[in-house]
Amino acid sequence: MSRTVLVVGATGRLGVAIARALVKRQSRVVLTARDPDKLASLAHELGELAGTAPPSVVCADLTREDAAPSIVEGIRRTDLGKIDDIVLACGPFPRTPLETLRREDLQHTLTVHAIAPLLLVHALSADLAAARGAVVALGDVGTSRPYTNHVAYITAKGALKAGLRALSVELAPDVRVNMLQLGIVADPEADADPLRTHRLAARSSLGRFGTAEEVVHVVLSLLDATWTTGETWNIGR
Amino acid sequence: MSRTVLVVGATGRLGVAIARALVKRQSRVVLTARDPDKLASLAHELGELAGTAPPSVVCADLTREDAAPSIVEGIRRTDLGKIDDIVLACGPFPRTPLETLRREDLQHTLTVHAIAPLLLVHALSADLAAARGAVVALGDVGTSRPYTNHVAYITAKGALKAGLRALSVELAPDVRVNMLQLGIVADPEADADPLRTHRLAARSSLGRFGTAEEVVHVVLSLLDATWTTGETWNIGR
Amino acid sequence: MSRTVLVVGATGRLGVAIARALVKRQSRVVLTARDPDKLASLAHELGELAGTAPPSVVCADLTREDAAPSIVEGIRRTDLGKIDDIVLACGPFPRTPLETLRREDLQHTLTVHAIAPLLLVHALSADLAAARGAVVALGDVGTSRPYTNHVAYITAKGALKAGLRALSVELAPDVRVNMLQLGIVADPEADADPLRTHRLAARSSLGRFGTAEEVVHVVLSLLDATWTTGETWNIGR
Amino acid sequence: MSRTVLVVGATGRLGVAIARALVKRQSRVVLTARDPDKLASLAHELGELAGTAPPSVVCADLTREDAAPSIVEGIRRTDLGKIDDIVLACGPFPRTPLETLRREDLQHTLTVHAIAPLLLVHALSADLAAARGAVVALGDVGTSRPYTNHVAYITAKGALKAGLRALSVELAPDVRVNMLQLGIVADPEADADPLRTHRLAARSSLGRFGTAEEVVHVVLSLLDATWTTGETWNIGR
Repeated sequence: MSRTVLVVGATGRLGVAIARALVKRQSRVVLTARDPDKLASLAHELGELAGTAPPSVVCADLTREDAAPSIVEGIRRTDLGKIDDIVLACGPFPRTPLETLRREDLQHTLTVHAIAPLLLVHALSADLAAARGAVVALGDVGTSRPYTNHVAYITAKGALKAGLRALSVELAPDVRVNMLQLGIVADPEADADPLRTHRLAARSSLGRFGTAEEVVHVVLSLLDATWTTGETWNIGR
Repeated sequence: MSRTVLVVGATGRLGVAIARALVKRQSRVVLTARDPDKLASLAHELGELAGTAPPSVVCADLTREDAAPSIVEGIRRTDLGKIDDIVLACGPFPRTPLETLRREDLQHTLTVHAIAPLLLVHALSADLAAARGAVVALGDVGTSRPYTNHVAYITAKGALKAGLRALSVELAPDVRVNMLQLGIVADPEADADPLRTHRLAARSSLGRFGTAEEVVHVVLSLLDATWTTGETWNIGR
Repeated sequence: MSRTVLVVGATGRLGVAIARALVKRQSRVVLTARDPDKLASLAHELGELAGTAPPSVVCADLTREDAAPSIVEGIRRTDLGKIDDIVLACGPFPRTPLETLRREDLQHTLTVHAIAPLLLVHALSADLAAARGAVVALGDVGTSRPYTNHVAYITAKGALKAGLRALSVELAPDVRVNMLQLGIVADPEADADPLRTHRLAARSSLGRFGTAEEVVHVVLSLLDATWTTGETWNIGR
Repeated sequence: MSRTVLVVGATGRLGVAIARALVKRQSRVVLTARDPDKLASLAHELGELAGTAPPSVVCADLTREDAAPSIVEGIRRTDLGKIDDIVLACGPFPRTPLETLRREDLQHTLTVHAIAPLLLVHALSADLAAARGAVVALGDVGTSRPYTNHVAYITAKGALKAGLRALSVELAPDVRVNMLQLGIVADPEADADPLRTHRLAARSSLGRFGTAEEVVHVVLSLLDATWTTGETWNIGR
């Protein structure tokens, strides 16, 4: 299964776990994220893990207007020159309390979580189609069962969900486009927050945070689910 | 039931029908849309219908950054000075074929259909809460069963749906926030398009376009559904 | 709007409220339920309310194998001889703790809440089609967000939901078939139960039980929603 | 991953594929189905595949009232004496044209697809809990987007879906209970039916039947998805 997978948001906690899992199963990866040092460090680690040269990295800031074309250009400059599949694991989870919700919060969050990823899938659709590839995006169960203080984030994930759904119809049958909506994943820094714990207890049947490995398991399953497009699978709620 | 209802997108086909129906049942309306002439003409007609002075109008362009605050300011300048309920009937239905999908399409459509309406609800939430008011938004069944050539529009309606859902949790229990997702409404100009007819046949159990009156019926039902928030009701699919 | 509406489960709390509301808006009703005394008493009350002769009643036990044909036969014997619309408001809400769940619980609850109502719609489909009629059924939001101690009931409401959805496709476009899924409706006898109150707080954005009037409002809306079939509208969750 | 998985409906096309895949990944299986010869033959094949003794079989007819207890008793008599996980792959797909839909169709189909499986999960819940086990059931996307001629089947799958959802809440967090809803799986005997092909084209983005392997992939993914309960994942629509 030596496919080339673009991991967007590769240096976030889930992005790193996904990239590692892809490398472990012999996929090639192209890593993109904003911070060049984190990218280089992750690439180094993954090269050691694979016993190969470090994977290609493309440094890009999804908030910039040219994010999608600049990532495509970066891919063209790598040895491989193209990708087969995309995992969208963009990271930020901005807290936007209602009282202080501003236009900029919505614009910025929609740009990072919806506009840039959708344009990127669009820009790479020929690569994806040629490889009969798949897009798997991380979403959030909050789009159907929202929690407070995250209107901008939930709006953006709803935009991404609907936009990918529309792209799944446009790009079928050659490209499969699916989303995985997550509950609350364990985060050593955040788990001490009593609000998180309370939210968890009130919502999750399983009564615990998910692990990165549990998310990775379903990301890989969905990448390989060749008879599935336009779907949203939920976990951890 | 003499409530004051802000109708956003009042001069569109559905907006006009909704405004008329509200006036017919003795609601006061405040009309907002972009075109001052159409607004004046509609206000005149509604005044005659009600046998009163024409309702207040607030001319505003939802694509402008200051759309929400400028509508609020306009409301404050009306005789009533405040509103009780909001109907979001923003109109544009841009065609964005995949081949030529541009960043601007997504930004523009998200601004008109999601960012501006969400900010407006946010800005008027004190009015709504004081009146134990309701927000009813028109959405599109395409968010769950998309059609081609409308990625930007479907993305924006998905953003609106998720954002309103999040607001419903933030604003409960004083404000109710719901969405009505529509199938294809009859449009004398567009109905000759064979693609519309084909899409209809392939999708709709009832096999026909909806009428504005049928949409109005459910908008009013949802405005009055005092035990409902955060819901999406579908019609016409 | 002088239609003839069969109200199934007419003597339950919601059934009574629905029958009254129908009579108030000049619909004719045919009432069916199990207890002849309650039926007679309700018919008497509704006759007084309408200033007419009491409406027709058909006494039937939905647990009996011949429930559907016997109700149809009863309808044929009434003055009207036929019905235009059906409201399914079957009442029982059996508690079936997991430890003691028995086969009979599932069979019995499925019979009352799914098999008998589906067969009744089926048996009356020619009446419905001739009148371009509607079926509105009361369901329960527990099918998508279940609570404990009601596996049999939730299973049966899930069966009804899917079965009506299938019938909506079979009977389109002449007959419309829709469901209303409810949260927890106020019940003077049950509301003292602290478990109910706790369940409510944990689940409902609006934080209160619904009233029968609030349910009736949506039942009537859905009866009149001429551009809607195969849908499930949720309220009170 | 040497778990013991009960495969219900093991001799159907999907059941066989699932049983093979489980054996290939070193799971132990207990097979149950109605036909003793088919069961024996499958057990023989799986023994050869594993290079071990044939797996245990429990012959049972899900239409019988004592199906669940008799399967449990059969399991107790096997060498293993207990199971860890359950895959519900019950087979029949009865065609029930609307004109001739009978009470028996609904009763029979509900018994096989919902009552017996739910009672079986209930009866084995202590085994499942002790093993922190999972239930994965095959459902049908027809519950949300129905097709004609299958009211009984769709009703039964809707009952199973809701019932398992209710059980997922009752049995959490020790037991995970999930469903996989399928589109139309390839079937050499049935694929020549032009109605199937037409239904496919009208509904499926991918425009083809699924393979048993593609279903198996998601069944195994869901068995291993340790942070998931009460979910329905859709494929092939």
